[in-house]
Amino acid sequence: MWWHDCDDLRSKNGELWQLFHTRSTFVRDALMTTLQHIGVLTSGGDAPGMNAAVRAVARSAIYHNIKVTGISEGYTGLLEGKLTLLNSRSVSNIVNQGGTFLKSARCMEFYKPEGRAKAAEQLRESGIEALVVIGGDGSFTGATLLAREQHIPVVGIPGTIDNDIYGTDFTIGFDTAINTVQEAVDKIRDTATSHNRLFIIEVMGRDAGYIALYAGIGAGSEEILIPEKSRDIDYLLHSLNRSDRAGKTSSIVIVAEGDKSGGVFELAKTVEEKLPGYSTRVTVLGHLQRGGRPTCADRVLASRLGVAAVDTLRDGTSGVMVGLRDNRITLTGLEKACKETPDMDPELIRVADIVSI
Amino acid sequence: MWWHDCDDLRSKNGELWQLFHTRSTFVRDALMTTLQHIGVLTSGGDAPGMNAAVRAVARSAIYHNIKVTGISEGYTGLLEGKLTLLNSRSVSNIVNQGGTFLKSARCMEFYKPEGRAKAAEQLRESGIEALVVIGGDGSFTGATLLAREQHIPVVGIPGTIDNDIYGTDFTIGFDTAINTVQEAVDKIRDTATSHNRLFIIEVMGRDAGYIALYAGIGAGSEEILIPEKSRDIDYLLHSLNRSDRAGKTSSIVIVAEGDKSGGVFELAKTVEEKLPGYSTRVTVLGHLQRGGRPTCADRVLASRLGVAAVDTLRDGTSGVMVGLRDNRITLTGLEKACKETPDMDPELIRVADIVSI
Amino acid sequence: MWWHDCDDLRSKNGELWQLFHTRSTFVRDALMTTLQHIGVLTSGGDAPGMNAAVRAVARSAIYHNIKVTGISEGYTGLLEGKLTLLNSRSVSNIVNQGGTFLKSARCMEFYKPEGRAKAAEQLRESGIEALVVIGGDGSFTGATLLAREQHIPVVGIPGTIDNDIYGTDFTIGFDTAINTVQEAVDKIRDTATSHNRLFIIEVMGRDAGYIALYAGIGAGSEEILIPEKSRDIDYLLHSLNRSDRAGKTSSIVIVAEGDKSGGVFELAKTVEEKLPGYSTRVTVLGHLQRGGRPTCADRVLASRLGVAAVDTLRDGTSGVMVGLRDNRITLTGLEKACKETPDMDPELIRVADIVSI
Amino acid sequence: MWWHDCDDLRSKNGELWQLFHTRSTFVRDALMTTLQHIGVLTSGGDAPGMNAAVRAVARSAIYHNIKVTGISEGYTGLLEGKLTLLNSRSVSNIVNQGGTFLKSARCMEFYKPEGRAKAAEQLRESGIEALVVIGGDGSFTGATLLAREQHIPVVGIPGTIDNDIYGTDFTIGFDTAINTVQEAVDKIRDTATSHNRLFIIEVMGRDAGYIALYAGIGAGSEEILIPEKSRDIDYLLHSLNRSDRAGKTSSIVIVAEGDKSGGVFELAKTVEEKLPGYSTRVTVLGHLQRGGRPTCADRVLASRLGVAAVDTLRDGTSGVMVGLRDNRITLTGLEKACKETPDMDPELIRVADIVSI
Repeated sequence: MWWHDCDDLRSKNGELWQLFHTRSTFVRDALMTTLQHIGVLTSGGDAPGMNAAVRAVARSAIYHNIKVTGISEGYTGLLEGKLTLLNSRSVSNIVNQGGTFLKSARCMEFYKPEGRAKAAEQLRESGIEALVVIGGDGSFTGATLLAREQHIPVVGIPGTIDNDIYGTDFTIGFDTAINTVQEAVDKIRDTATSHNRLFIIEVMGRDAGYIALYAGIGAGSEEILIPEKSRDIDYLLHSLNRSDRAGKTSSIVIVAEGDKSGGVFELAKTVEEKLPGYSTRVTVLGHLQRGGRPTCADRVLASRLGVAAVDTLRDGTSGVMVGLRDNRITLTGLEKACKETPDMDPELIRVADIVSI
Repeated sequence: MWWHDCDDLRSKNGELWQLFHTRSTFVRDALMTTLQHIGVLTSGGDAPGMNAAVRAVARSAIYHNIKVTGISEGYTGLLEGKLTLLNSRSVSNIVNQGGTFLKSARCMEFYKPEGRAKAAEQLRESGIEALVVIGGDGSFTGATLLAREQHIPVVGIPGTIDNDIYGTDFTIGFDTAINTVQEAVDKIRDTATSHNRLFIIEVMGRDAGYIALYAGIGAGSEEILIPEKSRDIDYLLHSLNRSDRAGKTSSIVIVAEGDKSGGVFELAKTVEEKLPGYSTRVTVLGHLQRGGRPTCADRVLASRLGVAAVDTLRDGTSGVMVGLRDNRITLTGLEKACKETPDMDPELIRVADIVSI
Repeated sequence: MWWHDCDDLRSKNGELWQLFHTRSTFVRDALMTTLQHIGVLTSGGDAPGMNAAVRAVARSAIYHNIKVTGISEGYTGLLEGKLTLLNSRSVSNIVNQGGTFLKSARCMEFYKPEGRAKAAEQLRESGIEALVVIGGDGSFTGATLLAREQHIPVVGIPGTIDNDIYGTDFTIGFDTAINTVQEAVDKIRDTATSHNRLFIIEVMGRDAGYIALYAGIGAGSEEILIPEKSRDIDYLLHSLNRSDRAGKTSSIVIVAEGDKSGGVFELAKTVEEKLPGYSTRVTVLGHLQRGGRPTCADRVLASRLGVAAVDTLRDGTSGVMVGLRDNRITLTGLEKACKETPDMDPELIRVADIVSI
Repeated sequence: MWWHDCDDLRSKNGELWQLFHTRSTFVRDALMTTLQHIGVLTSGGDAPGMNAAVRAVARSAIYHNIKVTGISEGYTGLLEGKLTLLNSRSVSNIVNQGGTFLKSARCMEFYKPEGRAKAAEQLRESGIEALVVIGGDGSFTGATLLAREQHIPVVGIPGTIDNDIYGTDFTIGFDTAINTVQEAVDKIRDTATSHNRLFIIEVMGRDAGYIALYAGIGAGSEEILIPEKSRDIDYLLHSLNRSDRAGKTSSIVIVAEGDKSGGVFELAKTVEEKLPGYSTRVTVLGHLQRGGRPTCADRVLASRLGVAAVDTLRDGTSGVMVGLRDNRITLTGLEKACKETPDMDPELIRVADIVSI
């Protein structure tokens, strides 16, 4: 049975690859000797660095004499047979591009077992033996079901700007997104300071406050509101009052989309009522946070995970996500990656509070 | 009488400086020999490059052995006596900073004659003989009245991201703003292309469509809606239909704030109703357009205009705005600069239409 | 005879297009009715914005129902028949890319009449009736000869980072290059200031000091050395001494490649000998100055010139370069564009001297 | 005795803070109750993010009611008494600035015991009880001796772009530097591709190839030469030959300063001799790699380490460096941090080889 049941294969002192070699010899050898053709797709919200990941998957496969097919538009494209055989040059000049040249889409049909059966058939017909899925939670749920139901070996690569995936310190796209947000806030700071204003800025993160927290610390924001740690409006008012007394001439409040305090426009209204001295402005950063040339950290992360995904399949392992923890390649069961949520480190929240005084 | 009545002193073949030398010798010499102390302030909306302009005014004054006082927070700070004597080092390390270190503010009191009388008194008490005002239309109206009523020599420097000032090809901050918008749209394009989406993006420009037009051409947007050229919704729908047929996989529509077609959210609703095939998203770029490190063109423009403003005052001229036309320093009467609006070049609109097919 | 002998057709008050319509009706109509196929190539050193220019030429041609062929690798590719028919989508997603997707090369064979005869034959065989050449001086010389000898209608578009072409205020690529240099110098300033150091930085510009002058003003350099205005070493030493006394804690000297004072390494040696207090470092910026995503100004300029080039050919005009002066489209005879050099504006040099005190 | 002898206090599951509380109660309590005044300095080569670290140290101290003095120009400034008391506003608006506003310098006098005795006296006279040193190996050696000989509590924060410090996954400044290099190489790639050229690019890293390796993977370079892994010239020639056959139209080779193959100019000469088909160019990136606005990752890292440094001193620990491993705060003995060098992960080198095919 090739399906991998361990919840967390996190490598410690190189145990990972040993573990690889102690598992079911039958399956692994079968795959290692026979793995001749893999597919790769990007799914869900796009993230900068996905291209670098596809490139690494493709070149790593080719390096090992495995054929590699790019599947366009995620599971939708898989169902519709949008398949293209990739060679080494197909992925030239994309390592530095944002978005995903394979495109991405949501696919309602794939939610149903019949959809997944059809997908498996498509793969088999095309001779694709295993699949690398680059995306987030939703994409991994689909991949898990495809593997369980249809016995297609799958490996997941975490690609999402939200950094909300269990089993990796960072997801592909997160580093670029926080730099994009930071740059935008740096710019807004210029005008905030010129006019002694308060800016309330909404950033992406429906369930996770990582973008808000990192970019907020980086941009030197006065206050950060995230879903993981509720702070009521009184706390904010108190904090702004203190900033005012501390002689700050402008204030930046970063709010994650998923924050529970009622949204940025509601917040601005309350602040203007309660602190009439403040001239308040709202900015919703929106989709520009998804784009942009990937940072070096994202390109390197994507390259490492892409290579590791092919290694994992070659090693006969399926049903896992490759990630990076402690700066080393790590495997986590796909189901666990979907079910668990990473903990928000309280140290980071404390740092944010201290450096903003 | 030093007040300058010409509406437009646009230089042709160096006539400007000749003109300088044929004007009232009495006043000019008096000023040139006696001008010992000037003030400089930034007013209205801040714009990247204002710091470079203040630096150029300060260093140019010091170069000519004229004392120079920085006035904080615009006319408000002038009334409140927020004055600081600047030396050459006071303006070090600001040429590359966005915003304005002198800060800016709106001043209701300055709208009344008594306010301006008080301002003039402040200047006289501090020994400040002439004033350089960096800002837009509103700031120049105030400056004109200060000059007319209180006989304070003033020179204006056009600093606004909107590029909507008559008498100069470009205002300080415009070049930075269009690059900021272009970068944001480049990023949004990444995600639009990855998902085959239509993005409707609102950019600044209440009365003027320059930011929308330049950034729209630069970012390769499919359609640009500006206040100067009404295009009804049918035109837009037709254009999007054509893009679709031409095989475009994503579309970007740039809309200036001041466009008459009902706002970006209304537009998105109509498009989704009439073209159900499109998945539409809206982004309002907001205040990040005002900030950021000034581009080289803005820093050079600000440096030239700052030097020219001091030259102009030394030459005994007042009531004018310094600008750049045909890549040469130009003077325009402040009143004319306030009253007139620059024409939107139809060639640019045509170029936008052609390159977006 | 369609060859255009006027040296300078600079537009004044829209006279240009009138002039177009008063010229030889025979030729113009002939071309306008018959012009069915043009070619476009990039030649000489690449410059950011060349892609935007090719895109504008292609789309403008298609807009007017003219076929358009992209010629790879400049005149070399023309001789070798590296031709590709372009459609509207062939030039998608390149407006924001640096370099030139048509590639560029030097071509020794084209220097000889036989080479040009062969090129003309290639064009005629492929049905290409007229050629748009995007490049600098050298490329225009070749184009002029091709037009004169082989009666191939040609229009030039000035694309070079050096801004050294007569007949246009700015060349495509210059604005991007000065921002690239400015950013590099901004970064070097950080470390210079942290260590109280003097940095001598060589920038591109063999014959022209525009990059050095603009980026030097923009980056707030203490001194700028350019080929157009010799300043001996004593002047530099004097200036650095003055900076030192003025309390500056770091100094940046920008030197154009073509400066006559002996090169940056020689300069550094002399400074260290004569001013032992200075800790001096040298940086040669090199080829990164040629690359990078084009700025908005460069993309807009390239779009305007690309459209104008096709308009010019359609109007039956050849042997000219399209340019932008006074923010308006301008035609200049290609030979004049090659022979003349633009004057370095002494006002800019004066501004540089004043703002660096 | 408060001196901490453990070599490596790396935190696992929060053991670190427990460990803090099990150590010598006497000293810790003494310090925690009495620590009233700390000093902070930056030393050695400057790195982006140092300002964010100083800000975090200052604000964290103030948050805990500890006075904090900024010491200018490293140990030199300490000997010369260049001390400034910092308040919360002294460190406003620096989190986003490159370089170090405290400046940095080398100090020969501090190499001698007498120099360190004098430094300790300066600290005692000023009432500074403990010192935070932000810098690299050399700075830590000095700090260690100051602590050992003069019993001044010290904590080190790793600030260097080279990432060559044992005890932390990343040093402050490294992430910014690799993005700076990557952007430069992205630009050079534009022109390399336009002309089918080979570029050999020297990047910083005398003893460590981290910058070369990360930026090389990120920029998609064809080959990377680093001091940690010698590859002879034949290997490079072979690799370039293979690239050529693989249809690559341009090649980028990244070489760390400290590589043993004879320097970039020598390399270029050899390549041109052996592979005459290549047109080769050399670029030495130089000091621009040290500057620039810190990335978000560097600002967050610096904020965390700055807060941790003050926590460490408050907890009565000295003679350690704070670092980040496994995304958690970690302590390492300063001597160990100086003596050991981090291992270059062979997985990264393998990834670089695979993704460049």
